[in-house]
Amino acid sequence: MTIELPETIRRRCRAGTLAGPTAGLAPGYAQANLVIVGKEDAYDFLLFCQRNPKPCPLLEVTEPGDPRVDRLAFGADLRTDLPRYRVYERGELMTELMEIRTQWTEDSVAFLLGCSFTFESALLEAGVGVRHLEETGADGCSKNVPMYRTTRPCRPAGRFAGPLVVSMRPIPASLVARAVEVTSRFPAVHGSPVHVGDPSTLGIASLERPDWGDAVTIKDGEVPVFWACGVTPQAVVLESRLERCITHAPGHMFVTDVRDNDLAYC
Amino acid sequence: MTIELPETIRRRCRAGTLAGPTAGLAPGYAQANLVIVGKEDAYDFLLFCQRNPKPCPLLEVTEPGDPRVDRLAFGADLRTDLPRYRVYERGELMTELMEIRTQWTEDSVAFLLGCSFTFESALLEAGVGVRHLEETGADGCSKNVPMYRTTRPCRPAGRFAGPLVVSMRPIPASLVARAVEVTSRFPAVHGSPVHVGDPSTLGIASLERPDWGDAVTIKDGEVPVFWACGVTPQAVVLESRLERCITHAPGHMFVTDVRDNDLAYC
Repeated sequence: MTIELPETIRRRCRAGTLAGPTAGLAPGYAQANLVIVGKEDAYDFLLFCQRNPKPCPLLEVTEPGDPRVDRLAFGADLRTDLPRYRVYERGELMTELMEIRTQWTEDSVAFLLGCSFTFESALLEAGVGVRHLEETGADGCSKNVPMYRTTRPCRPAGRFAGPLVVSMRPIPASLVARAVEVTSRFPAVHGSPVHVGDPSTLGIASLERPDWGDAVTIKDGEVPVFWACGVTPQAVVLESRLERCITHAPGHMFVTDVRDNDLAYC
Repeated sequence: MTIELPETIRRRCRAGTLAGPTAGLAPGYAQANLVIVGKEDAYDFLLFCQRNPKPCPLLEVTEPGDPRVDRLAFGADLRTDLPRYRVYERGELMTELMEIRTQWTEDSVAFLLGCSFTFESALLEAGVGVRHLEETGADGCSKNVPMYRTTRPCRPAGRFAGPLVVSMRPIPASLVARAVEVTSRFPAVHGSPVHVGDPSTLGIASLERPDWGDAVTIKDGEVPVFWACGVTPQAVVLESRLERCITHAPGHMFVTDVRDNDLAYC
């Protein structure tokens, strides 16, 4: 089996021949979430990321109007090199597109944020199983990680405010420490868990009813472990009801040339 | 000997009864550098810090016109609670003051950045000596760490651009790994060294002629180890020749209520 390099994947997105989810593609290479706002909102969003580093693992910010991010992906164009995009107006989903050349303007500022795929690779390498990758959903594909809105507010910045969203992975009690040690090596990509154990103090009523993603099995002897989740900044931006905001379509990320392991070092 | 708590130190600054350097005060509590720019330059400076995290360990950004930083220091007022400030206009030092109530405006945005005192405490606790603390200068006080301009450029952001400045600490060869391990625990405050060994590839001509601070003795069997230095953002801001910029006076820092050790966790 040939493993496609990130550059090939991005080229296929650009050509329109790849429009599906990116989970599992280019293993070992970091994938990123995309949030595009107008430059008039860039300061507030940058400050929101600075104030909430665990849920907002900011990797790169473009110059206004410039869709390149050469340091992460040489020669890439953010308007074309994701498989699928979502365009929101005042918080409402307007359309899903395979490229955003028309929507991108000279005022567009793109933010690329790291994603938990990066530390999930490290967990697997360390012998810590990741439950949602082991279970399949109704569609026969592996489940998405369960994600939950909490009652813990993020620090607001300008017009951006909202609750912390967390992802949950059940971990055997004897491996919780390992899961903490492994993920704490990635402070730039969510880092260590924000909460281990009883979800009620996070304001989560039922682990079986996630707000995003799929519920997973929690086996006897396992502990629910919660990490800050990258849905947080996306949800906050939508709640702010910006005139327009563009993001990646869920699961359809930007594949960079940066190795996951390099994100452990700053 | 009574150890003054940070709050007491800040109150003495506010009352004008403390105007001297803060090194060694409130041991175990993090001290911070201060950079104040107008809000029109805040985005570029925030982006500069995001793009250059090692030399710019950003802890907090105020709301425009609001001199409080309650999360770092409850009840503090940045206009009064440092022992000494410097006011620059177009890169030229205009005056040194003990408080900046008149200079602070509704457009002022203050940035607080971490400082190497934080990881120096950790080095000492780990049994790694810090040479400039062991030697005294001509004034009979312990030396300042030697700092050097390098030929390595920072990533620019808007009007802010300039070279990386590094600090140097000579470390015995057998303790270099320990120095790396200890300081890598503080990614939020400079983190691990940027360079170990021969300074010539950093563009440093002579270790005996630092650009800031004092030269220190390098003993046989010791290796020069270089960390990104907080003078970097200050030097860059001055080079940008902003109409006005206010900083702490060198060595006269803002003493926070945050414990150094808490900065190891994000």
